[in-house]
Formats: sequence, structure tokens, C-alpha cells
Amino acid sequence: MQFSELTIQLGSAIAASSLGTASHLNPILTGLAPIETAAAGTISYIEGDKFAKFVGSTAASALILPMNAAIQAQATEREIAWLAASEPRLLFAQVIKLFYQPFQLPLGVHPSAIVAPDVELGKNVAIGAHVVIQAGVKLGSNVTIHPNVVIYPDVQIGDRTILHANCTIHERVRLGADCVIHSGAAIGSEGFGFVPTATGWFKMEQAGCTVLEDGVEIGCNSTVDRPAVGETRIGRDTKLDNLVHIGHGCQIGSNCAIAAQVGLAGGVKVGDRVLLAGQVGVANQVTIGDRSIATSKTGIHRNVEPGEIVSGYPAISHKLWLKTAAIVNRLPEMYQLFKQSQRD
Amino acid sequence: MQFSELTIQLGSAIAASSLGTASHLNPILTGLAPIETAAAGTISYIEGDKFAKFVGSTAASALILPMNAAIQAQATEREIAWLAASEPRLLFAQVIKLFYQPFQLPLGVHPSAIVAPDVELGKNVAIGAHVVIQAGVKLGSNVTIHPNVVIYPDVQIGDRTILHANCTIHERVRLGADCVIHSGAAIGSEGFGFVPTATGWFKMEQAGCTVLEDGVEIGCNSTVDRPAVGETRIGRDTKLDNLVHIGHGCQIGSNCAIAAQVGLAGGVKVGDRVLLAGQVGVANQVTIGDRSIATSKTGIHRNVEPGEIVSGYPAISHKLWLKTAAIVNRLPEMYQLFKQSQRD
Amino acid sequence: MQFSELTIQLGSAIAASSLGTASHLNPILTGLAPIETAAAGTISYIEGDKFAKFVGSTAASALILPMNAAIQAQATEREIAWLAASEPRLLFAQVIKLFYQPFQLPLGVHPSAIVAPDVELGKNVAIGAHVVIQAGVKLGSNVTIHPNVVIYPDVQIGDRTILHANCTIHERVRLGADCVIHSGAAIGSEGFGFVPTATGWFKMEQAGCTVLEDGVEIGCNSTVDRPAVGETRIGRDTKLDNLVHIGHGCQIGSNCAIAAQVGLAGGVKVGDRVLLAGQVGVANQVTIGDRSIATSKTGIHRNVEPGEIVSGYPAISHKLWLKTAAIVNRLPEMYQLFKQSQRD
Repeated sequence: MQFSELTIQLGSAIAASSLGTASHLNPILTGLAPIETAAAGTISYIEGDKFAKFVGSTAASALILPMNAAIQAQATEREIAWLAASEPRLLFAQVIKLFYQPFQLPLGVHPSAIVAPDVELGKNVAIGAHVVIQAGVKLGSNVTIHPNVVIYPDVQIGDRTILHANCTIHERVRLGADCVIHSGAAIGSEGFGFVPTATGWFKMEQAGCTVLEDGVEIGCNSTVDRPAVGETRIGRDTKLDNLVHIGHGCQIGSNCAIAAQVGLAGGVKVGDRVLLAGQVGVANQVTIGDRSIATSKTGIHRNVEPGEIVSGYPAISHKLWLKTAAIVNRLPEMYQLFKQSQRD
Repeated sequence: MQFSELTIQLGSAIAASSLGTASHLNPILTGLAPIETAAAGTISYIEGDKFAKFVGSTAASALILPMNAAIQAQATEREIAWLAASEPRLLFAQVIKLFYQPFQLPLGVHPSAIVAPDVELGKNVAIGAHVVIQAGVKLGSNVTIHPNVVIYPDVQIGDRTILHANCTIHERVRLGADCVIHSGAAIGSEGFGFVPTATGWFKMEQAGCTVLEDGVEIGCNSTVDRPAVGETRIGRDTKLDNLVHIGHGCQIGSNCAIAAQVGLAGGVKVGDRVLLAGQVGVANQVTIGDRSIATSKTGIHRNVEPGEIVSGYPAISHKLWLKTAAIVNRLPEMYQLFKQSQRD
Repeated sequence: MQFSELTIQLGSAIAASSLGTASHLNPILTGLAPIETAAAGTISYIEGDKFAKFVGSTAASALILPMNAAIQAQATEREIAWLAASEPRLLFAQVIKLFYQPFQLPLGVHPSAIVAPDVELGKNVAIGAHVVIQAGVKLGSNVTIHPNVVIYPDVQIGDRTILHANCTIHERVRLGADCVIHSGAAIGSEGFGFVPTATGWFKMEQAGCTVLEDGVEIGCNSTVDRPAVGETRIGRDTKLDNLVHIGHGCQIGSNCAIAAQVGLAGGVKVGDRVLLAGQVGVANQVTIGDRSIATSKTGIHRNVEPGEIVSGYPAISHKLWLKTAAIVNRLPEMYQLFKQSQRD
């Protein structure tokens, strides 16, 4: 694609480009490349504050830049075409969409798939080899189910949702439209419910279900359990990374991002636009307010206020945690002085 | 089911019910519901200390209550039928069992399953679509194997054990009776055994096996490795939640509960009735005594005494940890005063 | 196998054996056994410093011993044949290789496998039941693919590589020779890339790929994501345990060992011969130097120097962490004295 054609396709996503001042820079672009290894003919992108450093050395023919006149001038001087926007990372994502076509499973039901007779299929579904779909399942239109997925009975799946290979969708799950379930994830599996008795554990059957609203993504090998009664629910456009555990009966709001290896125990309530960084753990029945943030490895045992930023184990305010972490490093010195002062 | 019929079926599990004082309350119950969304015709349950609050507002026609006369009277007054027991959560689990029938795979071997000729099948097995069972495997009676499960050679599986979809059972595993292996779990896979040498890692073949005694449950996507020689063993009625890792050669006792994302390194010994909360980690060769408890995210590097409760990283007694956690929050203030006292 | 035959086969791997001083000890060995349960006719091994204790009691007919004359004499006295080397654990691994033959899938393509017409197969491949291989995939010679594996399009797999059951290899992945991907792992799945906008998350398509060099092992249910552009790369002979997460764009060197449940966020750079113990977490874009070590549960937010040993959260030097951990235990006492000194 010629650079000028790219700018036309991106339209208002671009705030500025080299075409304004250097219209002779109009390379043919054959693909995207990371900045360190970009060859002539590619368009590249630089994450964060490192732009200046790489603009001077890259072999890319075009760059995505921030709204910084000096960096833009440097690119022009090196005869690199450039696009700029106030959020270059978003522009980068938009450029990728123009160059990259994700793998699309062929439409139709693969002859090796085992689909129960009463399953309702929407239009233009793509069901891969060795998929198994039990009775009572309803699929919307343009649903894609990659090979070796298993769907238990009475599941509902909305339009355009994609299930990647080897994932498992358990009984009564309801998936909204535009969801993506990545490889190996288990959705709607039995919650961990065992009641202690004098003679051992009594298993609590998990009669509830799991609901994912529209636009939810669940990472590879993540697990979202169902509760004994009622629902586990993940709100619209919330995104989970890999190896996340969501316990039975959790209620997660919309537009959250939950990073890899986070674990939520049973009955946790998470508000909207919450960010949980990697390996965070949340105890039973805790409530986490809207727009709050937990930094990585935080262990949350108490409610978190809306907008609060927490860190540490047990979780405290991020600011206080930064202070205590710095002082903990000085504890040996402090302890020596303290013992000395006791002797004095 | 009519309320009076339910009380008859539960028999001695109930310590008291509204029929004694308000026999006219005899609704027909069509199912279970969570307290917040319960409609007329359902029976509901309230976790923990929140009973009083919800009894006043729920639309449920029947409730499971604790042995608390005031709360029971309040329910009767609102014309809600009720059942009570000293352990209402156990009673709740018993009620669910009467209303909820888990999905049962049809009996027989699905024609798409690939079962080696010498595999021994017990009576009334249910083997789902696209299951693969290698040579030398023996299944007990009433075993259920959901679709896309793979069983490596020479595995033995006891009566009534259930394998959920997409799980993998490796060579020589022995599963007892009444086990449940949830979706995506990997049982008896190779332990992580690499010996460092001057020329790189030397792989230690894992010639041992993994044994799960009767009544063991393994959560979704959990992994239980086998050792180089001997056994990894999980004792009777021990329950593991999702995404748990059990290293090669671990010996876990009976009636333990191991929560999500716990990791045990190699050769760990765990006693009976031990509780490990979410994201706990245990180092190589550590011994954890009977009836001990580790709270969530604890990092255990040393042996734990029977009955001990530990927390923190490195693990210390839970009581001490609570104290230190409180003081850590005051460290900045303490540090200021300390620096001041140094100046004085 | 007779003991003398075993010593011949091991050759220079043995530094000493009981045949030198006690050639009459020449038992027939039928297998390996752990020391606690070893019966006559087996050869056994003792981990670490416990040799002396067990040599006096085991029923094993032969033992692998360290270069310790007293222990060797004790074994001879008890009429136990023995082999010794300066690294007994390595010798143990070599002995296992002589006794244990891992399960080998039969050569050929199972008739139930679905292999796209243009897939290139090397010599002597073994492709199990219900495997699915999409278009454009190239397999080297002697590749083994266990049942129910799914391979997305345009994947390349080197000679002798083994894929265990139910794992998923995503589009454009390149696996070197002699790799092992354990059950349920997901390689080359989409990185977690969502750009926040005023109207919600904008999905960044992940157009890059994942490359595993020769000799890499990936544990069960681990996940290795691909980046938006460029590569996620794991270097030669690096070994990952179970349930590890490697984020998009990570660059991991050679000969590393990464223990269970470790998580690396996006763009992390790890040098050669690095050891990350269980449940370590590493933040975005961090660089970890060659031969460095992070002890279990360490949370790494900043670069780690080559050869550095780090612990704690946030990560500090292991030595300092040991000191602070000891003092934290004394904080309650210190705090009491401190408050008292304030009153004085």
C-alpha cells in the first residue's frame, strides 16, 4: 500500500503527516515491523519515550510518531515518511488493522464436528474439525468455533463471538456478541464448593451459570467458574489475560482489564473500568470500586474504594506502600541504630 | 416440589421448619435462586451474617435459615416458609442436590472415540465424542469421560470417576473411585527435572507415576506432575481448585482443600485436613503438618507444624503477621520520629 | 540388567563403583525405586544430604552415591552394590535413561487426524488421533504430535519436536528442533493488547509471531503470547515449567529455567542462564541480566543486573531481603520499645 493511500484510509485518525511538508516521501509499504529490525518498505512504531533515539537509526520507510515537531522534523530529514496523532499507540493499532488479516476459519460445519441435532446455528457460522456441541445450544450469526472446542448443553453464544481451539464452554453459559475465548480457557465450570462435615467434604452442586456480556475477552487457559445458584457475570468489554481465575459468583463490571494470573475468590464484586495488574489476588466477597487500580501482586483482603490505587499484601494505598517499601530497605540500618540507642 | 415434600425428603438434615408453627405456609417450589433476585416460587439461601437484612425484603417463597428464633419468626411473619439447621450452608447444599441434576453424558462409547483394542471398560461407562484412550487403560464402572479427553497408556480409573472435557491423563496415572478431573487439567505429566551440566541441561526422564486416591477433585487447568521415580500422591477426598500446580513427588494427605493458583514445588509433603488458600507457594521438600492453614499468597520456605496458621512471605505465624502488617503501615511515621530522635 | 552390565553401559559417567572392592556384589536390577519403598532387585537414589541415614536401612540392591568413602563403605558393608560420581543427581538421570523408555506414539498419521492438503510432513512423523493441522504448516522429521493437538496455519516445527495432547500452536509459530510442548500449553496466542479510548478498548491485532529455538520445553497449560509486530522469542534450551505466562514480545535467552506459575508481562528481556523460581512476576519492559536468579514469589519492577540474586516485592538484593525479613519479625517488639522510648 502506498503511503498516501494509507493516510487516506486512516482519515481523521491522523492529526498530521509528512505529506504536508514532504509530499515526495510516498513509499510503498509492504508491512509492519518492529523498530529494531525494520527494513526498507515497512512502517514501524516506537513505544513510549524512545522515539528520538530510534528515529535517527531505523531503516523503516515510514513511522508512526507522537505530536512532537522536533521528532517529526528529524524523521522528515532522514527521508522517513510519518503519520502522527496525539495517541500514537492507538494510531499504531489502527494501522495494524489495515495491514493484518487474522486467520479466518472457513465457513460451514466441518464434517468431523459432532453437533447435537437440536443445536440452533446462526448464519455464516464456522465450526472447525472435531468440535463437539451438546444438546440445546444456540449459536448466533458469524460465530467461529475453532477445532477441538467442547460446548456442554444449553449454552447460548452471541453473534461474531470466537472460540479458540481446545477451550471448553460448560452447561448454561451465556456468551454475548463479539466475545473472544482464547485457547484452553474453561468457562462456566463448577465453582469450588465443598462444605466441611464431620465425615469429610459435602459437595455443593453448582446449579448456577456464567454470563459474559458483549465484547468480553478471556485469555488462554483462564477459568471462570459458575456458582451454586445465580450467576457469575463479567460485564461488557471487560478483558481478561491468560491464566486468570474468576471464582464462583463473582460480579465484574464493564471495561475492566485483568492481567495474567490474577485470581478472584468467590463472590467478589468488581466495578467498572477497574485495572488489576498481574498476579493480583482478591479474597472472598470483597468489593472493588469503579476505576480503582491494583498494582501487580497486590493481595486484596478488604474493600477498595472507587478510584483508589492499592498495592502490597495486605493491600494498602499505593502511595503508602511506596513509602513503606523504601523504608523496609533501610530496616537493617534502622535496627542497628535502634539497638544502639537502647544501649545508650 | 411442595415445601412439605421437601422437608420430608431432607428428613433429619432439618433441625426446625416453619411447618411446626405455620403449617399453612406450604408453597410449591420450582427452583433455587440467589436472595437478591429470588422470585416467588423459589427457595433461597443467605450466606453468613446477612440473614436479618434480606429476610425483610426477599420475594422468595422459602428460605434456608440458621437456628435463630428471631430470624425464623421474621420469616414466618412475612409468610415465607423456612427450613433451619445448625449449619445452614450444609442444608443449602442438601437442598440443591434435590433440585439440581448435573448433566450426564449418555452411556456408551461415542462412535468417534478412539479406544485402543485392549482397553478394559467397566459397566455403564459413558465415553464422549473424540475421546482418545491409548493401550493398557482400565476403566471401572460408571466412569464418565467427556469429549476430547486424552488418556495416555496404562492408566487405571476407578468407579464413578468423571473426566471433564479437554483434560489429559498421562501414562501410568492411577485415579481412584469418585474422582472428578475438571476441564483442561493435566494429570501425571512429566515433572520439571533438568540437571545442570557444563554443556546445558540434562533431561531427567520422569519414570514415576501420579496416584489420586478416592474422592479427589482437581480443578480446571490444574497440573499434577509425576516424579522421576516413585509416586506423586494426593490423598482421599482432597480437593484442588483451578490452576493449581503440584510438583513431582509431592505427597498430599487426605481431606485437604487447596485453593486456586496454589503452587507446590517438588517433593512437598502435606498432611491431612490442610487448608492452603489462593496463590500460596510452597518450596521444594517442605513438610506441612496436619490441620495447618496457610492464608492467601503465603510463601512457605520452611516446615509448618501441625495445626499452625501461617501467613506472609516468608511465612510466619498468622498472629505475628497480623501485627507486623499493622506496624508496616506505620513505618513512615515511625521512621520520621526515629530520624528526629537521632538528631536530638 | 546385571549391575556389572549397567556399569559398562554408563562408562565414564561413573567415577567409582563397588565392583572395585566388592566384585561379588553383582545383583540383577529390574528397575528404579525411591529409597523409602525400594525392594530387592531395584537401584535407588537419595537426594541431597540424607544418604547416610538411608544407606543403613534401604532394601534396594544397588545405590547411586556421592564421592564419599564412608558412605560407600557403609553400602558395601550392607552388601549393597553402588555407583558413584561427583554429581550423583546427574548419574541418577543417566541411569533412568537406561531403564526407562518413554511412551512413543506409533509412526504415521492417524486416520482421524485432519491435516490440510498442503501440509509438509518430514520423515517418520507420528500424528495422533483427532489432531488438526491447518494450511501452510511444515513439520520436520521424527516429529510427534499427540492426540487432540490443534495447529493453526503457517506453523513450522523442527525435527524431533514433541507436542503433547490438547496443546494449541497458533498461527506463524516457529518451533525449533528437539522442543517439547506439554499438554494444554498455548503457544503463539494473541498478546493482551487493548488501547484505552474514550469509547472503550480498541483491540490491537497481534500480527507478530512466537519463536521457540531448539531444545525449548514449555510446561503444561503454560501460555506464550505473540506480539503486535515482531517476535516473542525463547532461546535455545530454555525450560519452562507448568502454568507459566510469557507476555507478548518477551525475549528470553538460552539455558534459562523458569519455574511453575511465573508470569512475565509484555516486552520483558531475559538474558542467558537465568533462574526464575516459582510464582515470580516481572513487570513490562524490564531487563533481567545473564545468570541472575530470582527466588520464589519475587516481584520484579526494575532491571536486574547480570549475576544478581533478587527476592521480595518489590525485588531487592537477596542478602538485604534476608536481613529485612528477619527484622520484620521483630517489628512488634521494636515498635513497643520505640513507643516506650517516645514516652521517656
